[in-house]
Amino acid sequence: MQQTPELIRSELTSLARRAREASLFLSRLSAGEKNAALTAMAGALRKHTAAILSENTRDLAAGKENGLSDAMLDRLALSEERIEAMAKGIEKLVALPDPIGKSEGWQHENGMKISRVRVPLGVIGIVYEARPNVTSDAAALCFKSANAVVLRGGKEALNSNAAIVATLRGALKERALPEDAVSLIESTDREYTKTLLTLTGEIDAVIPRGGAGLIRAVRDLSRVPVIETGAGNCHLYVHSDADLSVAEDVLVNAKVSRPSVCNAVEHLLVHKDAAKAFLPRALSAMNAYGVTVRGCEKTRAVLPEIASVTEDDFSTEYNDLVLSVKVVDSLDEATRHINAFGTRHSETIITKSLFASAEFGAKIDAACIYTNASSRFTDGEEFGFGAEIGISTQKLHARGPMGLNELTTVKYLISGDGQTRGTPPKK
Amino acid sequence: MQQTPELIRSELTSLARRAREASLFLSRLSAGEKNAALTAMAGALRKHTAAILSENTRDLAAGKENGLSDAMLDRLALSEERIEAMAKGIEKLVALPDPIGKSEGWQHENGMKISRVRVPLGVIGIVYEARPNVTSDAAALCFKSANAVVLRGGKEALNSNAAIVATLRGALKERALPEDAVSLIESTDREYTKTLLTLTGEIDAVIPRGGAGLIRAVRDLSRVPVIETGAGNCHLYVHSDADLSVAEDVLVNAKVSRPSVCNAVEHLLVHKDAAKAFLPRALSAMNAYGVTVRGCEKTRAVLPEIASVTEDDFSTEYNDLVLSVKVVDSLDEATRHINAFGTRHSETIITKSLFASAEFGAKIDAACIYTNASSRFTDGEEFGFGAEIGISTQKLHARGPMGLNELTTVKYLISGDGQTRGTPPKK
Repeated sequence: MQQTPELIRSELTSLARRAREASLFLSRLSAGEKNAALTAMAGALRKHTAAILSENTRDLAAGKENGLSDAMLDRLALSEERIEAMAKGIEKLVALPDPIGKSEGWQHENGMKISRVRVPLGVIGIVYEARPNVTSDAAALCFKSANAVVLRGGKEALNSNAAIVATLRGALKERALPEDAVSLIESTDREYTKTLLTLTGEIDAVIPRGGAGLIRAVRDLSRVPVIETGAGNCHLYVHSDADLSVAEDVLVNAKVSRPSVCNAVEHLLVHKDAAKAFLPRALSAMNAYGVTVRGCEKTRAVLPEIASVTEDDFSTEYNDLVLSVKVVDSLDEATRHINAFGTRHSETIITKSLFASAEFGAKIDAACIYTNASSRFTDGEEFGFGAEIGISTQKLHARGPMGLNELTTVKYLISGDGQTRGTPPKK
Repeated sequence: MQQTPELIRSELTSLARRAREASLFLSRLSAGEKNAALTAMAGALRKHTAAILSENTRDLAAGKENGLSDAMLDRLALSEERIEAMAKGIEKLVALPDPIGKSEGWQHENGMKISRVRVPLGVIGIVYEARPNVTSDAAALCFKSANAVVLRGGKEALNSNAAIVATLRGALKERALPEDAVSLIESTDREYTKTLLTLTGEIDAVIPRGGAGLIRAVRDLSRVPVIETGAGNCHLYVHSDADLSVAEDVLVNAKVSRPSVCNAVEHLLVHKDAAKAFLPRALSAMNAYGVTVRGCEKTRAVLPEIASVTEDDFSTEYNDLVLSVKVVDSLDEATRHINAFGTRHSETIITKSLFASAEFGAKIDAACIYTNASSRFTDGEEFGFGAEIGISTQKLHARGPMGLNELTTVKYLISGDGQTRGTPPKK
């Protein structure tokens, strides 16, 4: 049955308000209480593995019927190992420091005490695609940071997500904690997503997790604050003085170690003075890993056997074993190209020069800028944050890998004994 | 002449790109160079006072003709004193610490050095209403934080704003700094604002400054990240054990010292046990300052002479000498009422109880929460930030008074000697 927009709004508003009550409750829990609940949530996932797998089987069968690609089915598929990994992922959060309640304070000259205290955002919406492990990951990260979460997963994974959420809610209920800390929108009607994104004042932030299309749609429809994540059209620039062995190692790693992810390199820029020496070497390394290479005209002057790039190539995040190559005249041309076509995610220079490294770092507008290392390290765990809810490619609130701290905000508590500011005389 | 949407988009895109070049230039200036430019900007305002006043006179004449209210005309009006205050406001920024370039670093276990460096947001759009002093304030704050600014002021102040911006740009040009660090949209066509708000990737953040209507419109139209500022439907809650003399002083100050601003109190909540003692005292204090008082039925049982509130009162930010009063049964009722009707700006409790103060602080969802002090202190300078671009009422990025630091973001610089992450074997 199709719901009317009014009914959907009222249903989601009520869900968001229950979530807010739950978040208020969570915000006053101690770290120990939250950690005990996380341990219980992980235990419940293990205990209910069979039930979750059985729901996942239904999703997989429907997916096959609806012609999902093998890659999509693989993302959708759960197994005992994958559920164990989800449980371990939750348990890992127990050891991380609690971001809530940290404070710093100072005193106004009039004697008032001002203190800035870290508090949860409140109610977070997560809009994501087919991977059911995002359900438990996001729920646990939000829980540890005392946020309530409203999950909106892909319709392909609905039964799996519902089983996971029911399991987590059950674990909360058993510990007399508010189940509404974790909610799932169970309708597949797209109107629910649209409505969720307009619940200003009820939803404090929305985080989309998925492909560029999903992220753009969420950003464009949303009237609640959005943290954009993920799109990564990343470049590797080989400067004229580069150590070509480092250049080759880093290129291979950044291109082939996991080509489908956002921190993989998509485009190689080579300084004209390094082109003759490096391009044949790069092509042979790419060939060894089955990477298709396309090049600009100057690249093809050195490597006539490869196909031409089109202008579209430069703005394409292949997420695949494809690499475009462009020869540039200068570091300045490289940084301009990257700022024009990049998505401000992770950009790399290979150089021996401190000046070139500093120039690249200053001119490139991106979350993460590497010198002589692989952009594949852009990751919350690699950066030492312990966990990651996503990689922000925007500049407000959070930039780069986002850990627990990025799921919080602050509140000022001011305490005095009657301080006032410029009361005028009576009329 | 009306421009087509395509021409407007192309004009603003080109303006934003020139602004980005300028911001890149600013981001590499030293604090000393920026401070010298700020001093020059202040000097130029003083030097061109006559020219600015003459353009302001044109705006005032047009405003009178178009029937602007006296309050609006007062906001629009400049004078030698007001221009001097603008110049002093710019000079004050010189003494503030430069937020750009601060860094903290650590080392990955593989030896890579990771450093998080504070950088400007880039290009900031400011959409505001009639006060021309916002033009120089916002331009100077953005400049000090190495951001380029695209200003979109109210049409009533167009000539004044254009004269101020020309003066500031002139000062930059004289010092061989990029004029495009400060730009003004000079058309009064509303399509320009709409288009500005859709320039994703060209504008890094938009800050609306003005009334609730402007802020809502910007938030709802924008596809670029917005920092919401300003709306303040603030409450003062007098707990059962309150010191009534503190309650009276703080109420008077928060209501009457500047009723048109966002941190003024609009609504008084009184615990039922304090109602009989406090309400007559509050009414008499309000009467002494010409404040109109409206009350709920329980309030009117004590103060039968006042008018009834309507449900609309509770969600109204009067910005005027009006106060609504409601008697509540408990602290819990007070916090629920405030969370339901407040705008998460500044909320106050008057109490002697540590427990009541802590409960209020934990349950209220607002940027600033006061115990026994006036909410009029919610202000960047009062909080010790030295300057203020606005007061954020959202939770992402910045909350409460926003100073220079809130106009920045971070960038990670990672440096290694060829580190890679899990390269697979060749195919």
